Amino acid sequence: MSKKQASAISPTRAEDFPEWYQQVIKASDLAERSAVRGCIVIKPWGYAIWENMVRILDGMFKQTGVKNAYFPIFIPLSFLEREAAHVEGFAKECAVVTHHRLEQGPEGGLVPAAPLTEPLIVRPTSETIIGDSFANWIKSHRDLPVLLNQWANVVRWEMRPRIFLRTSEFLWQEGHTVHATDKEAIERTHMMLDVYARFSEEILAVPVIQGKKSPAETFPGAIDTLCIEAMMQDRKAIQAGTSHFLGQNFSKAFQIKFQDKDENEAYGWTTSWGFSTRMIGAVIMCHGDDDGISLPPRIASSHVVLLPILRKPDDRERIMTYTETLARELKEKEYFDRKISVEIDDRNIGGARGWDWIKKGIPIRVEIGPKEVEKNIVYFGRRDKEPRYRESMEKNRFIQELPVILDDIQTTLYQNALAYREKYTVNIDQRDEFYAYFTSKNPEQPEIHGGFAISPWCGSGACEEKIKEDLGVTIRCIPLDAQQTETPCVGCGQRPARNVYFAKAY
Amino acid sequence: MSKKQASAISPTRAEDFPEWYQQVIKASDLAERSAVRGCIVIKPWGYAIWENMVRILDGMFKQTGVKNAYFPIFIPLSFLEREAAHVEGFAKECAVVTHHRLEQGPEGGLVPAAPLTEPLIVRPTSETIIGDSFANWIKSHRDLPVLLNQWANVVRWEMRPRIFLRTSEFLWQEGHTVHATDKEAIERTHMMLDVYARFSEEILAVPVIQGKKSPAETFPGAIDTLCIEAMMQDRKAIQAGTSHFLGQNFSKAFQIKFQDKDENEAYGWTTSWGFSTRMIGAVIMCHGDDDGISLPPRIASSHVVLLPILRKPDDRERIMTYTETLARELKEKEYFDRKISVEIDDRNIGGARGWDWIKKGIPIRVEIGPKEVEKNIVYFGRRDKEPRYRESMEKNRFIQELPVILDDIQTTLYQNALAYREKYTVNIDQRDEFYAYFTSKNPEQPEIHGGFAISPWCGSGACEEKIKEDLGVTIRCIPLDAQQTETPCVGCGQRPARNVYFAKAY
Repeated sequence: MSKKQASAISPTRAEDFPEWYQQVIKASDLAERSAVRGCIVIKPWGYAIWENMVRILDGMFKQTGVKNAYFPIFIPLSFLEREAAHVEGFAKECAVVTHHRLEQGPEGGLVPAAPLTEPLIVRPTSETIIGDSFANWIKSHRDLPVLLNQWANVVRWEMRPRIFLRTSEFLWQEGHTVHATDKEAIERTHMMLDVYARFSEEILAVPVIQGKKSPAETFPGAIDTLCIEAMMQDRKAIQAGTSHFLGQNFSKAFQIKFQDKDENEAYGWTTSWGFSTRMIGAVIMCHGDDDGISLPPRIASSHVVLLPILRKPDDRERIMTYTETLARELKEKEYFDRKISVEIDDRNIGGARGWDWIKKGIPIRVEIGPKEVEKNIVYFGRRDKEPRYRESMEKNRFIQELPVILDDIQTTLYQNALAYREKYTVNIDQRDEFYAYFTSKNPEQPEIHGGFAISPWCGSGACEEKIKEDLGVTIRCIPLDAQQTETPCVGCGQRPARNVYFAKAY
Repeated sequence: MSKKQASAISPTRAEDFPEWYQQVIKASDLAERSAVRGCIVIKPWGYAIWENMVRILDGMFKQTGVKNAYFPIFIPLSFLEREAAHVEGFAKECAVVTHHRLEQGPEGGLVPAAPLTEPLIVRPTSETIIGDSFANWIKSHRDLPVLLNQWANVVRWEMRPRIFLRTSEFLWQEGHTVHATDKEAIERTHMMLDVYARFSEEILAVPVIQGKKSPAETFPGAIDTLCIEAMMQDRKAIQAGTSHFLGQNFSKAFQIKFQDKDENEAYGWTTSWGFSTRMIGAVIMCHGDDDGISLPPRIASSHVVLLPILRKPDDRERIMTYTETLARELKEKEYFDRKISVEIDDRNIGGARGWDWIKKGIPIRVEIGPKEVEKNIVYFGRRDKEPRYRESMEKNRFIQELPVILDDIQTTLYQNALAYREKYTVNIDQRDEFYAYFTSKNPEQPEIHGGFAISPWCGSGACEEKIKEDLGVTIRCIPLDAQQTETPCVGCGQRPARNVYFAKAY
């Protein structure tokens, strides 16, 4: 690995962050565009990350009493129309199924045939179709709460797709619950936000801030949207999970009614909450560096790669035996919630091999040559250290300590991300200072701005809109404990205000 | 549980098998029709079965070197058209997306807008869109084999839907592989058939026969389709998994080419193989009885239900404490590949409670009253025994032995299903006897026929078609080791033949 370039990925993050993002995805073989505009192919190295996310998050949901179910992918157009704000929010992004067969057309090729009496929408989200089931299922307060989740694909037509971040089809989970009281529904909304926050920080090593969306950014059809937001390395925010208190909006639209304890008829109180493959994009932009992506061990596609050095034919057999034995022994150990996952790469391509695995973000690389076999040691690099960093360790101790080393990498990634966010989060009270903060000093990098600003906002949609127009900056969230401040709003400079988080965002 | 009716499900299997199927699904709360024609809602008790199936089958795939990935749900119409037999096979079942937004129509409601330049098909299967990726990825023999799988939803428009068995949308996995030689691809086709057979028998407790489909029943676009077939309790067959050798058909349609070891350009050899939620229907029809469904413990939604008997208020606390302690202790034990899953049902609704759980097919029901608490015992029923059957056991022994008891139930279900199939599988050489066998004696039950017939077939599509028209009977499979027989074909009564499996089928 001596022929190191300035960095393995070109351009670097500082040179061109959006292009760096495309290049690290390509170099790590996570995913790629497909032949269908806006849809991506998630390749095995990327899909394994999602599998790990799903398994762990699913377990966290189940611990709160949630069960999984599955609802139709198609939503009748009339269902979507029943909740006015909801359909308005999604109408521009709907993939519409209008026919249910193909027939020979007049010019020879196949054309759509058998038109549907009512068009079907490929689900952009499932409040409506699930609401229809809830209305059939729920009769009495004894049927409540209903706590369901589904893992599914959804489609929101995307005019400017970006891999993982904005795609016409994406994978996600959507939780849907019904409660007898508003209090209980609001508690559930907060409980699931807390699950997302813990999952992001403890599993993805992505620190998040929590809060409530402004009315302009609230989910179409919701009363309140709670969210977690994370800072990427271009200092922009990404929304990393949302939890909606839907009030009785969907209950009234779908007649989700029950007989309460006093035998009065009442509408249920509902919530919904979602988390998607978009978070793979956040993991990349939070932890990646100029050498590629860096995977948090708890969700890494694989934990360790073994790189036997097979320069001399005579050494081959004993080196491969040593390698395969080590792989077998490692696979018996566990880290976090699964067995250690091990790759062996015996390609004879020189230094490019090690760099391939750095770019793919695997936490540990082990090189095995004649010296290691002779001394019964391993010589390993860590993705959270410099590419040239290596450590020698007696083999059995390495097998024993690997879970501790992986946990150390997990913690390092989190601490680095937290330090980065703290470095670029500032309190700004004055309007001028606020505008200066979000105006890049470097005209070639208009996207690399100051970071997160905690600044006073009066609550007016007009001020919010003005700031968005002027700076491309939005309110990321209103902290749940936001207090009135002494200083006036950074928008109007006049009205009394509360401190909220502002940032540019994905 | 004293007020037992003749049976918990009406009608019984013998009275009306198709209606019995609908009723057991309703009584067990597995799934139901949705507001979207042909699409179903899989409810938590049903979805948990699928989750267990997915986890176990996925592990079996990975042991053979297969990795998961994810490809777009939409397939451009032109892709489907590239393989002639393939598109012909699916054209009549295609859900077609023609627009990508909704707009206010002239009459006020929303209508489809923004027509697509090329219609998109909601995937009925993914050979084409995955073939397009394979063509991009594969350059050299060193890139082979490629062994991928995806867990996904697919849509095949269904005019006569039946829950799990035939639905417009269903969940499945589809494996897709590319190999350098036909030999290797054929080996993979057989390997995956073997995985399906082991999974069906060892995990679902559903015995299967293996073989090859006749040309008439081969997958559109395949050279050969291998399949496993199981017998249901109306003695009809259900196809329980298929594995296709696709030859170079899709490689040529999508230009999946590679440079072989001699640096010549060659087309890849591909396979595909699938298994779906349809198998939940097979599990129901294989193991259910007139009291409801019966879940094989390895895939059961839950293993044990605890039924505290709370007749006297004074007993309540100690009975609930005993119940909750038992639940906690049981949950620490493992059966097969997961922790014991325990339900507590403390409703005070008399005998109906026990019957609910019998209908839901849970393997073990434990009743806990004052006597059990006093003596530190459990009193339990097994779903594979009569509803009145109960057994007493010292509590700690029960905790210890539960995995053994569950395994015994798993084995019993398999053995019963195997005995049933053997009872209704016969060798028939003569045409008259063959026709008589498949003609019901009972005009009220035309669907309850003889069973599986192993009979000689000459290989002619005309004979196969004639038998299908006359009797509604199809060739389920040609055994892989089928030999020429002395007796002529049961169709034409003339030509030399090989013994194949005939049956009515789902």
